[in-house]
Amino acid sequence: MEILKTKAAMRAWSAEQNAAIGFVPTMGYLHEGHLSLVERARAENRKTVVSIFVNPAQFNDPKDFEKYPSDLEHDKALLEKSGIDALFLPAREEVYPSGVPKLRLSYDASMARLCGKFRPGHFEGMLLIVHNLLMWVNPTRAYFGLKDYQQFVLVKSMARDLEFPLEVIGCPLLRDADGLAMSSRNVRLSPKGRAEALAISRALKKTQADFPRLKNNLAELKAAFATELKPLSIEYAEICDADDLSEATGRAEPTKQYIAAVAATVDGVRLIDNIFLN
Amino acid sequence: MEILKTKAAMRAWSAEQNAAIGFVPTMGYLHEGHLSLVERARAENRKTVVSIFVNPAQFNDPKDFEKYPSDLEHDKALLEKSGIDALFLPAREEVYPSGVPKLRLSYDASMARLCGKFRPGHFEGMLLIVHNLLMWVNPTRAYFGLKDYQQFVLVKSMARDLEFPLEVIGCPLLRDADGLAMSSRNVRLSPKGRAEALAISRALKKTQADFPRLKNNLAELKAAFATELKPLSIEYAEICDADDLSEATGRAEPTKQYIAAVAATVDGVRLIDNIFLN
Repeated sequence: MEILKTKAAMRAWSAEQNAAIGFVPTMGYLHEGHLSLVERARAENRKTVVSIFVNPAQFNDPKDFEKYPSDLEHDKALLEKSGIDALFLPAREEVYPSGVPKLRLSYDASMARLCGKFRPGHFEGMLLIVHNLLMWVNPTRAYFGLKDYQQFVLVKSMARDLEFPLEVIGCPLLRDADGLAMSSRNVRLSPKGRAEALAISRALKKTQADFPRLKNNLAELKAAFATELKPLSIEYAEICDADDLSEATGRAEPTKQYIAAVAATVDGVRLIDNIFLN
Repeated sequence: MEILKTKAAMRAWSAEQNAAIGFVPTMGYLHEGHLSLVERARAENRKTVVSIFVNPAQFNDPKDFEKYPSDLEHDKALLEKSGIDALFLPAREEVYPSGVPKLRLSYDASMARLCGKFRPGHFEGMLLIVHNLLMWVNPTRAYFGLKDYQQFVLVKSMARDLEFPLEVIGCPLLRDADGLAMSSRNVRLSPKGRAEALAISRALKKTQADFPRLKNNLAELKAAFATELKPLSIEYAEICDADDLSEATGRAEPTKQYIAAVAATVDGVRLIDNIFLN
């Protein structure tokens, strides 16, 4: 596994490969969710690149940025074992030599919803770093976890609208045995907080189970979903069109896919989760 | 001269060259200003590509879009004679197969000034098409006329901030013998309108001549500039820092470059012009 620390080295490595490159961008503190993306990238491409960069520009809350967990040596060992070809590990000054650019990439309407509503600037910062990672790595395929479902939809739209010649692939969310969606932030939960947080995945599974019965009344499905989540401090709990993330009310259309999505804060840790309903 | 009509053909042509590519994006109805960019691109690169695409997404005024002059056969003849290697000539449906994307590229502060203030959405639409032209053409150097000075500053910033591996080069504004800045829109001026429009370049030249005397009082310089332009219908007439386009008042700093920029409407035709003051 080569470790590349500059944009120039990353670009040069990519240009030399003459092979399909799979790319998994991460913020480190890797868990099985990340590794499932790496596995898929390796299966579908001749070469695989992972990046680790905790992007300050996408943290609307500076405290969340400061507390974001990190264990680079452990990450490196996991990636070495996973058999990837290159790790892109740029320093902050390499990525933003003159500070975070003032250029804003925005889908105004879809960013005003779900996480975007509660994390001003988050998705703009995310799109900027993903755009630039794609410029440096120049992959054939890029892999994103579906846990960050709104992120996946926005990245897929950006890659299409800004004419990146690559495929954006969404990979299933993974859960721990107790049902909690895997996240680097879970390490910040106390045992009590973790037990409380299980209400999230329980509510999602119940909503998925309720869907066939309530698919002609999605407003009622949403209300039932909210009731399940009542003990928690909820930012949003919504039933959405999985394509464009618009709110789904009334009757479900048979040709469309729907998703239930939730953000909640437990122990001061912001957790997100979602489930496909059909 | 090869004529390429699809994104795929453009990308493939570019990938085959293995040579420095100079790129001149245009909206057609070419004049000597455009041809001076082509000449420079040819001098500095082994291969030269020109694009012609009248981008509906950057016309805030639909009437201006409808009236934008066009003479493709004449343009082709000029380009053939100029010795370029490829003309990229995509149809609207090729560029925007699903309509204009909702993604907005914005420098909020600098786009709120000068032309951006009077043409809502113009620069966002311009940055989007330039971004995508750069993706398809993948040039080594891209050439822009300094007549559209705000456009040049924004494109240069975007290319840097979005990590395009290329150089953005600004080429001097050209004037007709009577002083009027060359523009494809000039053809829409009546003889009387054209005579009136000459006040613009006269005012710019006088402001440049006044600069040494008034450089310690740029507010007064601006007032004198406005007085010269009084007979015209002016959108803005400003003295700016040439780097970031911020308004310059007070004393000029010796290390900085300054520009006078103006937009006026004559005969219902919107004209812009500018001059470096030092």
